[in-house]
Amino acid sequence: MNLAYDCSVTYPKGFSASGTIAGIKTNGSYYLGVIVSERTAVAAAVFTKNKFKAAPIFVSKRNLAKSGSKVRAIVVNSGCANALTGKQGLKSAEAIVAEVAKNLRISKKEVLVASTGVIGRQLPMDSIRQSIPSLFTGLTVRFDNHFTQSIMTTDKFPKQVAAEVTLSAKKKFRIGGTAKGAGMIHPNMATMLCFVTTDAKIDRKKLGAALQFAVGRSFNAITVDGDTSTNDSVFVMANGASGAEIKTASEYKAFLEALTGVLRELAMLIVRDGEGATRFVTLNIEDAATYEEAVRVGRAVGTSPLVKTAIFGGDPNWGRVISSIGNSNAKFDPAKVELKVEGISVYRRDEPQKVDLQVLEDLFSKKEIEITIRLNAGKESAKVFTCDLSYDYVKINGEYTT
Amino acid sequence: MNLAYDCSVTYPKGFSASGTIAGIKTNGSYYLGVIVSERTAVAAAVFTKNKFKAAPIFVSKRNLAKSGSKVRAIVVNSGCANALTGKQGLKSAEAIVAEVAKNLRISKKEVLVASTGVIGRQLPMDSIRQSIPSLFTGLTVRFDNHFTQSIMTTDKFPKQVAAEVTLSAKKKFRIGGTAKGAGMIHPNMATMLCFVTTDAKIDRKKLGAALQFAVGRSFNAITVDGDTSTNDSVFVMANGASGAEIKTASEYKAFLEALTGVLRELAMLIVRDGEGATRFVTLNIEDAATYEEAVRVGRAVGTSPLVKTAIFGGDPNWGRVISSIGNSNAKFDPAKVELKVEGISVYRRDEPQKVDLQVLEDLFSKKEIEITIRLNAGKESAKVFTCDLSYDYVKINGEYTT
Repeated sequence: MNLAYDCSVTYPKGFSASGTIAGIKTNGSYYLGVIVSERTAVAAAVFTKNKFKAAPIFVSKRNLAKSGSKVRAIVVNSGCANALTGKQGLKSAEAIVAEVAKNLRISKKEVLVASTGVIGRQLPMDSIRQSIPSLFTGLTVRFDNHFTQSIMTTDKFPKQVAAEVTLSAKKKFRIGGTAKGAGMIHPNMATMLCFVTTDAKIDRKKLGAALQFAVGRSFNAITVDGDTSTNDSVFVMANGASGAEIKTASEYKAFLEALTGVLRELAMLIVRDGEGATRFVTLNIEDAATYEEAVRVGRAVGTSPLVKTAIFGGDPNWGRVISSIGNSNAKFDPAKVELKVEGISVYRRDEPQKVDLQVLEDLFSKKEIEITIRLNAGKESAKVFTCDLSYDYVKINGEYTT
Repeated sequence: MNLAYDCSVTYPKGFSASGTIAGIKTNGSYYLGVIVSERTAVAAAVFTKNKFKAAPIFVSKRNLAKSGSKVRAIVVNSGCANALTGKQGLKSAEAIVAEVAKNLRISKKEVLVASTGVIGRQLPMDSIRQSIPSLFTGLTVRFDNHFTQSIMTTDKFPKQVAAEVTLSAKKKFRIGGTAKGAGMIHPNMATMLCFVTTDAKIDRKKLGAALQFAVGRSFNAITVDGDTSTNDSVFVMANGASGAEIKTASEYKAFLEALTGVLRELAMLIVRDGEGATRFVTLNIEDAATYEEAVRVGRAVGTSPLVKTAIFGGDPNWGRVISSIGNSNAKFDPAKVELKVEGISVYRRDEPQKVDLQVLEDLFSKKEIEITIRLNAGKESAKVFTCDLSYDYVKINGEYTT
């Protein structure tokens, strides 16, 4: 599968999108974006596990249940997370859904909604209501970037990717996605959002299972600061416009791979855009008892501030990596663990390996570092992606003015 | 109980201590310290839960088992953690124990050992062997600070505290302690160590139970960066030299309170010395289902880099605190959670409370901040202590040269 970076959610047939400004505040602006399917699409979503969930998550969940996951549009705003906003917040999310439904002449339950931005503040509903009609005059199937721009907050670059998958001579489908997020994300700009479209025809159950799997291999395997927000959401809509139906096991496998590939690429772009990040780190956790255990080890290493500051400083301090593995609560025998940095074994069978300090310093000073942790506890492996912790992370997150 | 800060492990009767330099390396020196009880003392210890444990921990555990927890001395070195050092590391720890036993003419099993410093390097045994005799010529019951100085690595100030407890007119005992650590601790200087002495007479089982309780209320309730090291250890020796025996329930309660008080004060001094810390934060978690659940919430908030950078920046971003509570995996109903900053309610019953932004900014700019999280899920409460995450944390941990 070849990924293209110059197209996104409107690459699959039958989807249009747009984005527009929706008001100005002290620190930046509010934006609105919408993705519309010309025909009813099957939808699936994964939401944050944070116990405090933003108002739009409650509304989207309810509409998925009411419509049997058959939807036509997703609307999103940036500039305000509509999280920790109580009853008024729910009313606002419902009002946005109602406006979109009215403009598209569809049922409210066919509209999903998402938000990102400052927590604990109410949405500026007057200016949002005024802006919604212009969302629909701006709808286009072309790749004009407006939707992606409408969801960006502290992102330094837009994140979008698409692919075409050939199942057989006459059976092709497309998949496209865009995401926002930098780090766990910016403080008040607190969220990771991802929107994926496909013109494959696939039933609701299969789509849901595929999304769960792909999220586990992508967004759940990245870690910038270990926190999850009140608003994190991943949506996928499949409208069947290509006519390519996912029926056989091999077709499902191809779909699963495509979805996972698109999500993983978007997740890696988020890590590369990590707040203040200067180095990109790939953690290969090999031979774990289960995939989940492998990810647990990777997250322990990838979230350790001591590991992340060492990598920022180019300090070849592999003992911190071993120590953070030991903190992970995963099941393994410490005596069997091997640690490699860029393929060179530094710790194995309870013994530090003889490696020249200068060689180690050179390895830890690379912009892209690959660290392999072999647990020798089973047959499962995982990749976890992370970045370093720099002065700029502290600056971005400490000097943000509410 | 009044705590004194001008005395330490030699305040209780029958204990002497000393410290000495034991060699020089590229970045600093090696030091040795020893605490000796003139009579056999009952000992208890709590060691790191990290799966990778340093060699001295294995040796101390074995000696506690062999001697039935009846010991005479604890020896400690700084400058090298003797962790991830394989078979050679175990031999070195055993050799140090043997030298101390020989000098004191006691059995090897009566000696405990601890280390702190760089991980993954071997101890300089030649210079250590040469220095051990001078440890014993320097032994004193006076408060000369040498022992505490011998265990300090990146600590900006020595941490020591002592108290005298009166059980009845003729029944008094003393308790004294010292600790090292700044943050989780310095990268390669990776460890929190604590040594407590008391001249109370108490049996092994009671002493062990009291130490477990006190560690749960002190060192396990502080969090600077959430990592635990390969070497973390807390030791207590009770030699009975005061004649005051802990027999009744009320005597045990007094002993437990004294031990907890000493350990909590030492733990708070470690937070105040947190690497790069500029603000001290007390998290009161109230009305949790269990004490452990309360601590879990406190640790989730106290380790969140987003919360810690906000506090560094004086940013009144209380939404980050709520979001990190939601990440904690503790059991509670989000709708019942209340958040107070310096006594002022900012979030309650799913609704943000109306608080003037300038008032909030002033609260978040204090050097000492008290944040109260009421879970309304039960009757247990906990205090968790933490500090902010500053540029200097990144500097200290990123620019350290191995």
